[in-house]
Order: sequence, then structure tokens, then C-alpha cells
Amino acid sequence: MLDVCLLGTGGTMPLKNRWLSSALFRYNGSCILMDCGEGTQIALKSAAFTFKPIDVICITHFHADHISGLPGMLLSMGNEGRTAPVLIIGPKGTRKVVSSLRIIAPGLPFEVEIAEIENNEETYYFDGYTITAFKVRHAVDCYGYRIDIARAGKFDVEKAKLNNVPLKAWGMLQKEDEVEVDGKKYTSNMVLGNPRKGISVVFSTDTRPCELLKNNCSNADLLILEGMYGSDEKDSKAREAMHMTFSEAATIAADSGASRLWLTHFSPSMPNPEDFEAEARAIFEHTEIGYDSKCDTLRFIDD
Amino acid sequence: MLDVCLLGTGGTMPLKNRWLSSALFRYNGSCILMDCGEGTQIALKSAAFTFKPIDVICITHFHADHISGLPGMLLSMGNEGRTAPVLIIGPKGTRKVVSSLRIIAPGLPFEVEIAEIENNEETYYFDGYTITAFKVRHAVDCYGYRIDIARAGKFDVEKAKLNNVPLKAWGMLQKEDEVEVDGKKYTSNMVLGNPRKGISVVFSTDTRPCELLKNNCSNADLLILEGMYGSDEKDSKAREAMHMTFSEAATIAADSGASRLWLTHFSPSMPNPEDFEAEARAIFEHTEIGYDSKCDTLRFIDD
Repeated sequence: MLDVCLLGTGGTMPLKNRWLSSALFRYNGSCILMDCGEGTQIALKSAAFTFKPIDVICITHFHADHISGLPGMLLSMGNEGRTAPVLIIGPKGTRKVVSSLRIIAPGLPFEVEIAEIENNEETYYFDGYTITAFKVRHAVDCYGYRIDIARAGKFDVEKAKLNNVPLKAWGMLQKEDEVEVDGKKYTSNMVLGNPRKGISVVFSTDTRPCELLKNNCSNADLLILEGMYGSDEKDSKAREAMHMTFSEAATIAADSGASRLWLTHFSPSMPNPEDFEAEARAIFEHTEIGYDSKCDTLRFIDD
Repeated sequence: MLDVCLLGTGGTMPLKNRWLSSALFRYNGSCILMDCGEGTQIALKSAAFTFKPIDVICITHFHADHISGLPGMLLSMGNEGRTAPVLIIGPKGTRKVVSSLRIIAPGLPFEVEIAEIENNEETYYFDGYTITAFKVRHAVDCYGYRIDIARAGKFDVEKAKLNNVPLKAWGMLQKEDEVEVDGKKYTSNMVLGNPRKGISVVFSTDTRPCELLKNNCSNADLLILEGMYGSDEKDSKAREAMHMTFSEAATIAADSGASRLWLTHFSPSMPNPEDFEAEARAIFEHTEIGYDSKCDTLRFIDD
């Protein structure tokens, strides 16, 4: 199962009742943080998470509302006793931006590793997570992220016997791809059935609708997409500012075969995004308006 | 009169119920901001101030909790329509730190001017404010700030007549030092009595007690001093971390002839600073425990 939490749902600037857009994912004790604007560390604490388990920080782009909280977050992770390396994934230039911001967070008790996204689409594997960064359409280089949690097939006793896998390898092969017993190698596909459906979530803000976004939303269990503007009347404003309306995000959800949509990254000029919920639901029924600390646990289907 | 507001009262890291230590001063429509940690822009809005009138930002030192909110603050000032230059005063290295942080706030609709403090004590004059930066004792280069608002003498009709100042110059000479009427120059000291008592406030956090701090606290109307630790039992911790206990701050206040003391910059490990109020008041009766959005207006004495 994958825990998902919207830490903040605001765009442009933090408000006293709305943190900047950010999300946290937790799987098997390892957390991925998506974006880190000013105040994200407080939002994370408010949502009852801790800093130390954050292994990966994905940055969509370098506008301040998506990264200004990074130095404070890194310092707080250190204060909480983290010593294991942290991986920061972001657009080209991430190394320079992180290094510049760290002028006020120079000494950390852990390594900061940087992965700059080189291509329009790039995949990273981390501790059970498959993270796909994909380029979206904004005023500056910007990426969305798809997280996939794969799920192995069910243990198949008949198959294990048929392949002469010794009993003491059965348990190990449900955790590891390959084990050696009495000098002989066995692989997990000798005891497991076909892979089962995993869990897929997409996080994408600060973009116009575009092909790579649509492709990556395909059949996801949950889409977390920006809805900077609620009303369709803001359509031209959305085009100009390179953002989306609720309707545009809902259309992507409807076309993608996704199960659910959470809207986020609301304009400061929109105090009540719920006012526009019905319009979005008319396009995609399973639309939900995001709010700070909105959390859910996505479970494997037959759990 | 001078408006004073503690925007935040926390040290080290922002908490969900306590913003990072920062203060705002407003005189004649011009604001000075002291320190700008993560979330200060939200604290400022919560205290019902606006961004645009901030003319000067004084930075005590470069620990993240005192400056991490700067890029967001500058962007929000720009979003609010500021075009007049902003002066940032801080320790040596301020130019480099501000420039590094501005990697995420590159385009602003106003100039950012930097004044790096060269000496142990340095005075700046700005729009009725006299700002004195003085070096304090912390783990890194750190400065406290004293703000003085001078007050001219009362208009003296007899003196004006005695000096043959024409009637139409009387009003002008209460606003300007020198005016010319019918080809002849007149100065304000020809119509005004002796200067009257002004208003003085000191803001100093992240320091041990030291001479320059004590000197600058002399006869101030209000001291805003750090009290990282409430209990005297934290005395050795305070020495080690280069901070002060409530008792140490109160002792400075008692010895300086100051009128009032507001304590701020509380350790995250101290959820209720009020628990230690009595101890501080036993040393200096006019001690008040700071809290976020604590505001007051300091008036000229005979107002």
C-alpha cells in the first residue's frame, strides 16, 4: 500500500490558510517528497509526518513556490538525525540551484545526491518505487512525476514444486529475485505467478495539457493535477500563465482511464475551490478538490 | 509614533504554532523588517501588514532560520506592486548570500540594494529612522539593531519672531531643516526649541550577553531580546549554543535603564515560554513574553 498526502495545495505564494503545493508519498517506510516550497516543512509536521524518512525529493521546476523551502527542509531532516543520503531529482540546473540555496544550509549530516533529468522522459528506480519524470508545458523547464509501485505475482506452490525449488528457498524468493541454496541458483519467476496490478500515481503541476502528461496519466490509480483556476472563464488566463483550469485537468483524467483525480495548486485569487467542484465532476465524476493534509492510502487491489 | 510587531518568536525551525523570529517596524508609512525566516511572509500577512511598504530589511546573520524566507518575501513584495528600491543591511557576505538565494527570485520589479556592515558598529539613516547595527556574540558573525526615531523641538513663536523668520516660513521649517523665502535662507533651529526625546527600540537575537549589546540597550523604550531558554537550568546549554536565558536577557534590561523588554526567539523545546515569565520579571519587572503578532505602538512621550 502507498500513503499519499497533499501537504499543501496553493500556487504562487503561501497563504495563512493554504500551504504551497507539495505532496508526500510513503511506501514501505520510505518517503518521496514532491516539491518543497516555503513552509512545506511545517505542512509536513501538521500532517503528522516526520522528516527523517524522506529519501527522495522530486522538484518539478525552479519557481520559488516549488523549491524555496528546500534549505529549511534539509536542515530539519538533519536535526531529526538523518545520516543516509538524500536524492534530489529535478530539471537540468538542479545541481546549481540546490548548491546556491545551500549557502544557508552548508553543513548537513547526510549527502545530497542530485539527479538532473536529461531527457523528456526518464525513469528512476528507488526502493520499490519506479519514478518516471516527464516533461510538461510551462513557462520554464518543468516536469511531472509518475510513481509506480510494482507488485509481484502470487506465490504458486504447484509452480515451485514443478521447478524443483527446495522448500527453504520459497520464503526468500518472495522477497528476492534470486537466491542460492546448496550451490544452486533459483529465481523468483520459478515460484511466482504473473505480476499483479500495482499502484500508480501521477503528480503534475504548473503545466498546460500536453501529450507527455496525458500519456503518463494513462490508467493511473490517482492523478494529482494542478487546477490553478476553477472557472472556465479563466481559460485565456490559464493559457497565458501556462496553467490549467479545473475543466482541463478533469478532461485529462476522463480521457486517461484514471480512477481518481485530486486537484491542487490553486490560485491565491480562488479562496474556495469547492465552488467549482461540480463543473469538474461533470467532466470526470471522480474528481476531488484537494486541501492541505488530505491523505489517503492506496491499497493493492486484492488486499 | 512607531508601530512594532513581533511577526514570529521561534528559533531554529518554524513550528505550526510559532513563526520564526522576526519583527516589523512602521514609522511614517515606511517599514523596516528585521530578519526573514521561512514563513515570515505569511506571519506578516497574519499580523495584517502588507509587503509593499517594506523599505529596509535588516538581517542579523545567515543562519537559515533568519533569512530563508527572503526570496519569497522579495517575490511577494514584487507581486504587490513595489517598484521602489529595497535596502538590505547585513553582515559581510550579504551580497553573496542574497545573490545566491535569488537564484529562485531572479526577476524583481525593484532594485535590491545591499549594505554590508563593515565595522563593529555602524549607523544608517533612512527616512526618519536612525538604524545602528552593532556586533553581538554568536557562533557566526551576527548583529543586533537599534532603531532611533529622533524628535525635533517644539515650535517656539517667540524664537521665530526674535530671529525675524517670516510667517510663511514657519510651517515649512517644522518639516525641513532649511528653507529660502524671498532670497533669504532660514534654518529650523531658528524656530524650534531643543530636540525632544524620541523613540528607541533594540532588536537582538542569537547572542550571548556582550558589551556592544549592553551599550546599545541603554535607555531604550523597548528591548526585543532573545530568550532561547526559559529556565536558569539551561545556563550551560545557552553558553554552549551562544544564546541567552530569560534571566540573562532580563539582567541586560535591568542594567540598561530600558523601559520594557519583550522576549523572543524561543527554543522549539520550550512550548510554553510563559512558564518562565515570573523568573524573568523578578529580575526586570517590565518583561513581557513575546508571541506571534504581538504588536504595540510606541508614542512620543507628550503625545
